[in-house]
Amino acid sequence: MKPSLITLLTDFGTQDYFVGAMKGAILSINPAAQIIDITHDISPQDIHAGAFNFVSIYKDFPPGTIHLGVVDPGVGSNRYALLIECAQQYFIGPDNGLFSWICEREGKFVARQLTNEQFFRQPVSATFHGRDVFAPVAAALSNGVNPEEFGPLIEDIVLLESLEPKTTAKGIEARIIHIDRFGNCITNLRREHFGDEEVSAGMSLSVNEERVTSFRKFFSQTTAHGGDELFMIVGSAGFLEIAARNASAASILKARRGQPIILSTENNG
Amino acid sequence: MKPSLITLLTDFGTQDYFVGAMKGAILSINPAAQIIDITHDISPQDIHAGAFNFVSIYKDFPPGTIHLGVVDPGVGSNRYALLIECAQQYFIGPDNGLFSWICEREGKFVARQLTNEQFFRQPVSATFHGRDVFAPVAAALSNGVNPEEFGPLIEDIVLLESLEPKTTAKGIEARIIHIDRFGNCITNLRREHFGDEEVSAGMSLSVNEERVTSFRKFFSQTTAHGGDELFMIVGSAGFLEIAARNASAASILKARRGQPIILSTENNG
Amino acid sequence: MKPSLITLLTDFGTQDYFVGAMKGAILSINPAAQIIDITHDISPQDIHAGAFNFVSIYKDFPPGTIHLGVVDPGVGSNRYALLIECAQQYFIGPDNGLFSWICEREGKFVARQLTNEQFFRQPVSATFHGRDVFAPVAAALSNGVNPEEFGPLIEDIVLLESLEPKTTAKGIEARIIHIDRFGNCITNLRREHFGDEEVSAGMSLSVNEERVTSFRKFFSQTTAHGGDELFMIVGSAGFLEIAARNASAASILKARRGQPIILSTENNG
Repeated sequence: MKPSLITLLTDFGTQDYFVGAMKGAILSINPAAQIIDITHDISPQDIHAGAFNFVSIYKDFPPGTIHLGVVDPGVGSNRYALLIECAQQYFIGPDNGLFSWICEREGKFVARQLTNEQFFRQPVSATFHGRDVFAPVAAALSNGVNPEEFGPLIEDIVLLESLEPKTTAKGIEARIIHIDRFGNCITNLRREHFGDEEVSAGMSLSVNEERVTSFRKFFSQTTAHGGDELFMIVGSAGFLEIAARNASAASILKARRGQPIILSTENNG
Repeated sequence: MKPSLITLLTDFGTQDYFVGAMKGAILSINPAAQIIDITHDISPQDIHAGAFNFVSIYKDFPPGTIHLGVVDPGVGSNRYALLIECAQQYFIGPDNGLFSWICEREGKFVARQLTNEQFFRQPVSATFHGRDVFAPVAAALSNGVNPEEFGPLIEDIVLLESLEPKTTAKGIEARIIHIDRFGNCITNLRREHFGDEEVSAGMSLSVNEERVTSFRKFFSQTTAHGGDELFMIVGSAGFLEIAARNASAASILKARRGQPIILSTENNG
Repeated sequence: MKPSLITLLTDFGTQDYFVGAMKGAILSINPAAQIIDITHDISPQDIHAGAFNFVSIYKDFPPGTIHLGVVDPGVGSNRYALLIECAQQYFIGPDNGLFSWICEREGKFVARQLTNEQFFRQPVSATFHGRDVFAPVAAALSNGVNPEEFGPLIEDIVLLESLEPKTTAKGIEARIIHIDRFGNCITNLRREHFGDEEVSAGMSLSVNEERVTSFRKFFSQTTAHGGDELFMIVGSAGFLEIAARNASAASILKARRGQPIILSTENNG
């Protein structure tokens, strides 16, 4: 069976015609494509937020899925357009790091530069490659066109900073990789960094001058403390988060994305 | 033909990866499922708003539709996970009242607790049953799995306050069950409470100290009065609403959800 | 093959049940219809914004597509309900100009008034023809019902102001037809008004007291100037836009929709 599932992730918002135009461009080439909206509400030009969303969901999709990502501040410039094969799925979009965390995690991937203009919508506008390059290529791929027809292999793609924390004398040095709309601060720490089953009693996270030591298994778990107590929780994408009870952890911590945090595991309990 | 239409209603918003993850979880199990977004913009944890939306649309969907509702403040706690069969459709979500107005209106329903972990995404996270429990069960059901395989029948489900108004000495005592984004105040009064064809001349609604006596058939209907005159209108879900001309009736009335209102029908005209 | 692709464009927002109800109404009549969301975030009652979106995307969709547009301030009044055949596609919605720019551009179209109540959802509410009239007709059409069964031909439809600029002594007199969420001001000037290949060196746009003379091919194109410099750019729907570097051109220009602008092409360079 040919792949026919095409997901869309963009920063276009939903007020304007951009998303509709991409859907039309796909369906004009493959009327049977099944289009799935991931989100169009990535903050304008926020490549990191797009990358975080992609790395958090790709494993939930079946083999053969085609993911179309358009967060593309460099549209019209000489940045590459990419088709990446990774984890038995396809990723199509600009070469700016949008898919790099997936490639890093999987280790193995095949990347091509989209150069074969026969698959583009003509004329290619300078401002909307989502409609004129990426959508038509995704549709052609979903029709069964062989990846190698779209352009030559390339070895290097643009990479965002690694998702791997570093081990230092002070502990494991991690960072906040995403702040969600509730103000939860998602770190790049995963189970492998803090234990398989339960977060250990002596574990703490240091952010700015604050130290977070509480842990919850789920948000509504009741604890002895009240107020805006900060706590750690393992989020559904597998990353350790800092959250607060009915409050924004990011505001309490005055945290921003990229902020360093230190995980220490010495047991003082 | 197996049911294969799956609707989604959540309070996840559209900025984060949660909705995409649920869609992936469904399509990994049933790639042919047709996923329909109802809304993801229910206010966080607002079970009543989710219940109002569901009771307003379920009759528009064909038999066999699977409705997936995830407004789930108690995720991770010991609240039940449900599969309800009602009105020839299926409703899957947490046991917190989200579907109770539908069950109340229909009178007859069959509820099961989702206990059979063989249908869950493993490991089940403590924070995201939308992806790990509800979506996989919906997908399995759409693949033709028999409802009884998902878990045992239960007799009681969590119920929200009844949608039925009460008859008292002062008139019919109703309440505001929803305030929409325009500030229209939707009450739990239906045709059967105020007459089949036209609203009768002497009818009035008392809210706080205000008394609403005008009635319109449609929003742009012109009347002798101007300004921010309040009026009654029968909304498209069949409930009587209080609206205002180019203004928020809720602001004018200082009304909130749950606010009592009295319908009197004595004809003083 | 019967048409089965149905797009939705409304001003209903995504918080309430309206979009879900329309989708249910369609799927109850044609469970195999493929529903594509264009946008539900048109500003309430903003017919011009809906018309701009439609004229910007219809050419991207395949023949046979059914476009359902519900921006309908006159719902319940005696405004007509329409089915228009144009450009090998179908357009269904209120007769208020929503599709008039498409008809104007194409020149040829066939319009019918929807009068055959046998295709409506009964009873037809006075407030929600999206669900009760337009969606069921779209679904019936997608099932193969012949257009002429829905109602009689009509000759005149409501037209918005023409999209064509006027040639005057001062230059070409155009106007701003849309302001997008970034504050870009989209004009009704197209390639045919300012040259096929490159914008000519001496071209300028006068808006209020301001004169815009710079031009960019794409947004991230670097220029000698910095700050909030205004520039012209050809947008992806083919219209000339006025944009500003990381700022809202509309705010800088104090521009509003409908604002006249003058294109002069005398070369002073």
